[in-house]
Amino acid sequence: MASIEIDRLIQLLSKLPGLGPRSARRAALHLIKNKESLMRPLGIAMETAAEYVQACSNCGNLDTANPCAICTNVKRDGAIICVVEEVADLWALERTATFAGLYHVLGGVLSPLDGVGPSDLSLDSLLARARTDNVTEIILATSATVDGKTTAHYITDRLANLGVSVTALAHGIPVGGELDYLDDGTLSAAMKERRGI
Amino acid sequence: MASIEIDRLIQLLSKLPGLGPRSARRAALHLIKNKESLMRPLGIAMETAAEYVQACSNCGNLDTANPCAICTNVKRDGAIICVVEEVADLWALERTATFAGLYHVLGGVLSPLDGVGPSDLSLDSLLARARTDNVTEIILATSATVDGKTTAHYITDRLANLGVSVTALAHGIPVGGELDYLDDGTLSAAMKERRGI
Repeated sequence: MASIEIDRLIQLLSKLPGLGPRSARRAALHLIKNKESLMRPLGIAMETAAEYVQACSNCGNLDTANPCAICTNVKRDGAIICVVEEVADLWALERTATFAGLYHVLGGVLSPLDGVGPSDLSLDSLLARARTDNVTEIILATSATVDGKTTAHYITDRLANLGVSVTALAHGIPVGGELDYLDDGTLSAAMKERRGI
Repeated sequence: MASIEIDRLIQLLSKLPGLGPRSARRAALHLIKNKESLMRPLGIAMETAAEYVQACSNCGNLDTANPCAICTNVKRDGAIICVVEEVADLWALERTATFAGLYHVLGGVLSPLDGVGPSDLSLDSLLARARTDNVTEIILATSATVDGKTTAHYITDRLANLGVSVTALAHGIPVGGELDYLDDGTLSAAMKERRGI
């Protein structure tokens, strides 16, 4: 049907998360219709990113610089490290612009069922960072799932006796959330951790 | 947050149909994690397609060759032209492998509400092709929507007196479709066009 070049474009696009064969064809047509404004710039952006983006050897963030722009930003507080599962979580926290410390990307969570053990995560580098004398607090911002909680407990144990305070994100009602639609776990956590106004 | 290169990648990805800002971020992370197997090849595929893919000057199909591989295929029957709205429709028909004639891509449908008139579609080139003495049949494979039907009627009028037979795709029950779930229009069309077994 279409040319080899178009088939290859569709085949590669269909490997993106969220795009199936049908939406990959739609995306390919959209790209071809917007050659100069979208397809060529996106192709160049991908090749550039493939060439220059790498994981920060200090925190695991993705950047063209190594150490990354966050680790080398002198305005950020190096005494606080926020531990996240994935780079996407780091981005999500950065979008809130409420945290001015540094990060540490684990690269996943402990999951015995999936065969993910401590050695599969960047835990040793976290401990090494925690041991440096200027770190005072480590925030565990793992997911509120079983695996995320397990990972947080494991890290808490490993960090004991290092003299850093270990904290976790607060549980509670999501901003804009209606009580009636919340699960019992969130609601009871919100009740337990109620605070004075 | 992330580097300029990653931001630009996300921003361009979010312009693809079916990808919002959130799924564009997911796609960007997936690409960065699969640099050599996906991001670089996809970048090259896009630049190649941007460079070489063009609309066939005869039928409007997209190909790296002009005229396209379908128009120049001597095994295909040049006496029958199937008129479709978009290249995606041509691809869909080609996947069925039931049609061995040529195509003509209109580039849309007549739509007074959206300001699309006959001059916005490639109608003159269709009439020019229909006038050549070897075309015997023109199949109107426009959508079964109001605009698609209007377009088919308009083309039928324009093709009158040219001595070519004008046909349309059959209406009926989709293969695998259950009667109970079909709309009344399809069901009554299927009843009206019933045939001997």
